[in-house]
Amino acid sequence: MTAAVTHPRASAGRADVLALLGLVGHLELTAFTRLAADSALAPTLDQQLRLVHFSAGAVARLDRVVARITELGGSPQVELARFARVLDDFDARTTPGSWWERLLTAYVGYGVADDFCKAAAAGLDDDTRDLVMDVLDGASHAELTVATLAAAAADDEVLTSRLALWGRRLVGEALGVVQNLLVTEPSLARLALPAPGEPDATAPSSDAVGDASVRLFGRLTAEHTRRMGRLGLTA
Amino acid sequence: MTAAVTHPRASAGRADVLALLGLVGHLELTAFTRLAADSALAPTLDQQLRLVHFSAGAVARLDRVVARITELGGSPQVELARFARVLDDFDARTTPGSWWERLLTAYVGYGVADDFCKAAAAGLDDDTRDLVMDVLDGASHAELTVATLAAAAADDEVLTSRLALWGRRLVGEALGVVQNLLVTEPSLARLALPAPGEPDATAPSSDAVGDASVRLFGRLTAEHTRRMGRLGLTA
Repeated sequence: MTAAVTHPRASAGRADVLALLGLVGHLELTAFTRLAADSALAPTLDQQLRLVHFSAGAVARLDRVVARITELGGSPQVELARFARVLDDFDARTTPGSWWERLLTAYVGYGVADDFCKAAAAGLDDDTRDLVMDVLDGASHAELTVATLAAAAADDEVLTSRLALWGRRLVGEALGVVQNLLVTEPSLARLALPAPGEPDATAPSSDAVGDASVRLFGRLTAEHTRRMGRLGLTA
Repeated sequence: MTAAVTHPRASAGRADVLALLGLVGHLELTAFTRLAADSALAPTLDQQLRLVHFSAGAVARLDRVVARITELGGSPQVELARFARVLDDFDARTTPGSWWERLLTAYVGYGVADDFCKAAAAGLDDDTRDLVMDVLDGASHAELTVATLAAAAADDEVLTSRLALWGRRLVGEALGVVQNLLVTEPSLARLALPAPGEPDATAPSSDAVGDASVRLFGRLTAEHTRRMGRLGLTA
């Protein structure tokens, strides 16, 4: 899968930095709301409380991103709002049918989203990149998912094959979101699709952009495969 | 409104203390989930972020309550779970029709709930009472509601009268929840309905219980009237 990107990468300007911060901030904000909603559906209080804490953790990370946007002279309102609809298609197409599928949806969806943001963060100034990487590293609630799903799937072949299928559906939709972002948000395309050996090139050839796109999606897919492997599921 | 309570108050035993902690914990847990859901519907990012922070604040309070239950040798699972359905009737009867009604629902509902818990906390040991009072004092997200609703209602007579009507509906339902709790949870009745001049009486007359009930509902109603007054609304 490659993105039809026509915007060459430039050195990261302020608008590009703010765009990525806006995306990361919006993802943390929605992670908060989604994990809170998931927590209310957890089958045990123990799992509920763990999701409650993951959810609350997203707020601290959101605050750091919002503070950085303000520090750079941007408007958190504007930067977050531009991504307000970014997950609409993903949501419409991935309504989970069970608690396990719900857990897997967050695990796969935020896994791909975080990996994409990390790839784009490589093009940022040092301070903002460190902040974004730190925020994204703190964002993982993967341990709960791994412990819960791996244990459940180990004893149940039917569940295992259903979840493997669900994971493939999810990653397809998640990569579609990334593809769409690269087309509609030139700032993110500039950050995430560097020309090879030309980190600051202002006008790489469209072949170079195509290669960068192939590399990006290869990397996102490989990380997804690794994540599914941790659950004992085939990607 | 008086509760049909037949359970006399005894000195606060461990089971009674755990019951109240269970109720407070459950209310914080649902406050977290509800405020998180409300935040996603806020008309501006500023209001959304404020609700997000109020929601996350409930988690820290929940943690303190859960820790105290464990400290007293209780099971947080058991104590919180017994109140899992306590707000079902209230929710079924108070679906907000607008953002303003939604704000008012949390303000009135948690206002009454917190006042009831404070009244019951009077019968606890010093350490637990201090913790419960501290948790409940930290729980108020009233300032946002007051600032937002008072400003909106000041300019709009139709909204003012609709919200006043909504407030009366809410307080009726909220007092119904309290009434129901006093009947179904003897522990809470013992804590919240002391016999006059007999804080440790083990068998007050049913008249004394009736008087205590009248006083409790009078107090809850008066506090509600004061809260509505802060919004410029008639209770």
